[in-house]
Amino acid sequence: MLSTCLGVIFVKQALPDILSFFPFWKELNREQQADLLLHGQLRKFQKCDMIIPYEDQCLGLVLVRSGQLRAFVLSDSGKEVTLYRLYELDICLFSASCIMSNIQFTIQIEVEKDTSVLLVPSTLYDRLMQQSIAVANYTIQLMASRFSDVMWALEQVLFKSMDCRLAQVLLEHAAREGTNELSLTHEAIARDLGSAREVVTRMLKYFREEGLVELTRGRIQLMDQKRLQTIANR
Amino acid sequence: MLSTCLGVIFVKQALPDILSFFPFWKELNREQQADLLLHGQLRKFQKCDMIIPYEDQCLGLVLVRSGQLRAFVLSDSGKEVTLYRLYELDICLFSASCIMSNIQFTIQIEVEKDTSVLLVPSTLYDRLMQQSIAVANYTIQLMASRFSDVMWALEQVLFKSMDCRLAQVLLEHAAREGTNELSLTHEAIARDLGSAREVVTRMLKYFREEGLVELTRGRIQLMDQKRLQTIANR
Repeated sequence: MLSTCLGVIFVKQALPDILSFFPFWKELNREQQADLLLHGQLRKFQKCDMIIPYEDQCLGLVLVRSGQLRAFVLSDSGKEVTLYRLYELDICLFSASCIMSNIQFTIQIEVEKDTSVLLVPSTLYDRLMQQSIAVANYTIQLMASRFSDVMWALEQVLFKSMDCRLAQVLLEHAAREGTNELSLTHEAIARDLGSAREVVTRMLKYFREEGLVELTRGRIQLMDQKRLQTIANR
Repeated sequence: MLSTCLGVIFVKQALPDILSFFPFWKELNREQQADLLLHGQLRKFQKCDMIIPYEDQCLGLVLVRSGQLRAFVLSDSGKEVTLYRLYELDICLFSASCIMSNIQFTIQIEVEKDTSVLLVPSTLYDRLMQQSIAVANYTIQLMASRFSDVMWALEQVLFKSMDCRLAQVLLEHAAREGTNELSLTHEAIARDLGSAREVVTRMLKYFREEGLVELTRGRIQLMDQKRLQTIANR
């Protein structure tokens, strides 16, 4: 069984394992589970494919099995701003945004690395959301999570001070200790900056994505002092 | 019965009418309705009061009966950016954000005009969301709506071209027709700009809030040509 437009659909046997990654799976009744088994699809996307927009269709809820997706906004003049990225086991809600009538914006989502996903078609997801409190509440948490991502991006754009301050702190520590391998907890940095640990963790992850640092248990390795210095000098 | 900190709590008799403004009211069972009647509170806030943060408490879901609230983000350095405003019958979800564990951001909400609200305490709202599919799905739509507001603000900040282009179009029409009273549909403007009608409507409402235009059926009255010109020249 082949999809004409979305790459190979895998054998159905693999589905039950994957479906259990949805926290609501166990809360569904047998009929709803059967529905998901019947209509859920394993699909592959290639680097540079678009998940949104997708051929004028509302694709559905997408659970990333492997690979990497990037959500961004695009201006009329072609300017792009990255909002968040999705990795293994992350779930892409906005590819099913057609089922939420109050969503009046367009996020674009592109495939950054070859990606395989579990796809729950929009109509099915909509039905489950109307039938199951577990699915509806899961959707609320999912949207809250993406909302947080976007607010973070917004605050970066608006205020852009944290990245600069974090880069400064990292470089100061490195200079002080004469090493690129800092044993620093996120909590300690947050205290330094008078900020919240979550904010620091988030910014460090962003630095990692940008190739500026590597993060391992209790340690932060500076990978690109020169670019960190540029950020610190902003 | 008086609240020590949140102004007068009205007589309970007024509650049923107000509660019916929640689209999910009719979907609740009698027990849930009784719960809302018992714990729902009518409260008043004064201009400049804060709804978020509110004395380190998670206030609850707030339905605006009259007045005006403003949601904004605030940088460490004190810079403010308005995200959206709430008017009569609008609902403030983030004053109950503590019940959504994935919300990791802080919006501030202040009272711009004396405001009376119906307050559904967080614990009660949380319980209803866990019990009622109607409440959960309503919450999804509510969050989608606020998400759209924030995305709109983000795009304004990022790309900032629509306001400029809209101001230009309005001034051109006014110059062309020799009047400040334009009979122009939002659709027509959208076509002019190669944009969506919704985007134009939204920007016009923003202009109205800023005192730049008045909107009546099929007509747009320019109230401040000078400021519109400044925007057009950006």
